[in-house]
Amino acid sequence: MARVIVDVMLKPEILDPQGQAIARALPRLGFDGVGAVRQGKRFELELEGPADEAALAEVRKMAETLLANTVIEDYTVRVAE
Amino acid sequence: MARVIVDVMLKPEILDPQGQAIARALPRLGFDGVGAVRQGKRFELELEGPADEAALAEVRKMAETLLANTVIEDYTVRVAE
Repeated sequence: MARVIVDVMLKPEILDPQGQAIARALPRLGFDGVGAVRQGKRFELELEGPADEAALAEVRKMAETLLANTVIEDYTVRVAE
Repeated sequence: MARVIVDVMLKPEILDPQGQAIARALPRLGFDGVGAVRQGKRFELELEGPADEAALAEVRKMAETLLANTVIEDYTVRVAE
């Protein structure tokens, strides 16, 4: 059994109002030194088999179809250590 | 300038209906071989200075205060490669 991580983030050119709200809230809460924040999603998938190349290709298809909106989001797929 | 990643996931004992909905949708969409899915949040913070131990301690405080609800969520802080 393997665990695969899919990270989904807004594309750099897409405005991220959630991240901006966090970045603006930080100084008010006494935190300085953070220039920008982007918020995204993280999925942990427990595979029933090994995380071989075929399984990772399937996960990439899931990310395209279900987990990410590829018009505005980028995704990365990696095997969890 | 350094980039720090904060991953926030529901604690293992907390039910994750979003993840369950995804896990149930996958076979309907023709994807087999995934046993369980958990969904969480991923934050990318651009630090104005270096990601030294002091800066990472600050980021951990931000995660406790603002990014995670530590009653139901765990977080990890790491420097992006």
